[in-house]
Amino acid sequence: MITSINNPSVKNIVALQSKSKARKEQGVFLVEGPKMVSEIPEGLLKELYVSEEFKADGQYKELLKNKKYELVSGKVFREISDTQTPQGILAVVCQQNYTLDMILRKKDIHLLLLEDIQDPGNLGTMLRTGEGAGVTGVIMSKGCVDLYNPKVIRSTMGAIYRVPFLYTEDFYGIITKIKEICKVYAAHLKAKQYYDKYNYKAPTAILIGNESRGLKEETAALADILIKIPMLGKVESLNAAVAAALLMYEVYRQRRN
Amino acid sequence: MITSINNPSVKNIVALQSKSKARKEQGVFLVEGPKMVSEIPEGLLKELYVSEEFKADGQYKELLKNKKYELVSGKVFREISDTQTPQGILAVVCQQNYTLDMILRKKDIHLLLLEDIQDPGNLGTMLRTGEGAGVTGVIMSKGCVDLYNPKVIRSTMGAIYRVPFLYTEDFYGIITKIKEICKVYAAHLKAKQYYDKYNYKAPTAILIGNESRGLKEETAALADILIKIPMLGKVESLNAAVAAALLMYEVYRQRRN
Repeated sequence: MITSINNPSVKNIVALQSKSKARKEQGVFLVEGPKMVSEIPEGLLKELYVSEEFKADGQYKELLKNKKYELVSGKVFREISDTQTPQGILAVVCQQNYTLDMILRKKDIHLLLLEDIQDPGNLGTMLRTGEGAGVTGVIMSKGCVDLYNPKVIRSTMGAIYRVPFLYTEDFYGIITKIKEICKVYAAHLKAKQYYDKYNYKAPTAILIGNESRGLKEETAALADILIKIPMLGKVESLNAAVAAALLMYEVYRQRRN
Repeated sequence: MITSINNPSVKNIVALQSKSKARKEQGVFLVEGPKMVSEIPEGLLKELYVSEEFKADGQYKELLKNKKYELVSGKVFREISDTQTPQGILAVVCQQNYTLDMILRKKDIHLLLLEDIQDPGNLGTMLRTGEGAGVTGVIMSKGCVDLYNPKVIRSTMGAIYRVPFLYTEDFYGIITKIKEICKVYAAHLKAKQYYDKYNYKAPTAILIGNESRGLKEETAALADILIKIPMLGKVESLNAAVAAALLMYEVYRQRRN
């Protein structure tokens, strides 16, 4: 059992919690809690840490069965956990590497293209909602917050394992490629037409901009069609995750019906 | 100019930032930033505090014109502000008191009924989205987070001034009253029918439960109809603010068309 916070594995996990660079170099990310651990896809679990209390709790016997794990003291677990009320189980998980080709080979293409999304909760929520709405891939400009940030991971509620995604340094180049096979719709306050006036049954990509600035003009100019969400009252815009949800679910609504 | 953090007004604002009880007793709440201050409805501004730097910044001359305010030093402003990067202007605003009668007298009734919503960002986002979707009132169980919490206020983006709302100790009693004039639809994972299969043109209330537990069984039992949002993949539920947004915008979509 690990009882010292100076243990090298403990120090490494602390670095992985806070440093995007460390996660990138090691090609891993961290997840916490029984739900997130139970959903780790086959073959991606690298290391597992369990607190004494967690092991002693009978209800998690099934989860730990046939798994190799390192037991750690309560104090050590509080050190490695990112949350205020640690759940007693933490895993180091291998990152999956998706390519644009893999993403574009899927059926019923429904993409979410994100420019400079900054809020971890928003990004995680978009992935979670995206899975529900049948999004087949999420493409992020390199200015987006790190998807492997612990706060993002928590708000994905497991969608991080299942929705293909990639970051790109060449957001414009990728949008141009996507346009060859998809109609690209950009959520834009200056759009003339409402989002529910178009038909999304063909391959579709939805482009969403930064929370406070919206899409850059050059990015919006790349879209095939600008769309807007109607708003009553004096609301100037919607939360980015809410706007994305309304658009993704409109695509899904049309495809279901 | 106030230069001491021991000034009684300063101490009071610090209390108002962190204590729901102090806000309730004084019947006020705090807003920060030029946008939130510029949107304060006529007659509700009680006190205004401006930092030296803010006053010196020429672009805010118009905002400060004809307004009585107290100048405070930069140090004092950092003390009274709830944000990490204070914007230099803070107002004490009178709470508005809405009654159920006032809310039920509106035209095109479209209510949001919230049970024990805990996350400030979710609650604020629901109010913001609600204004956009034409919600005519928000009714909250007393277990919901305080709407006057600074984080909630920020995420409303001004909707707090414009969307009527009330807290109730008797959530069931109020739902029963609302049912006399409205159809109450509850978002529920066990619902048999999708949300977009109903007609929401008549007076409508949408009932949303707590983020992790959903609606209590007794509350769900009060609803006229249970509805669910279809989800692909392995998603078990959507974020509460996202679910509320999809439902409110479906109501609005039908009423627009």
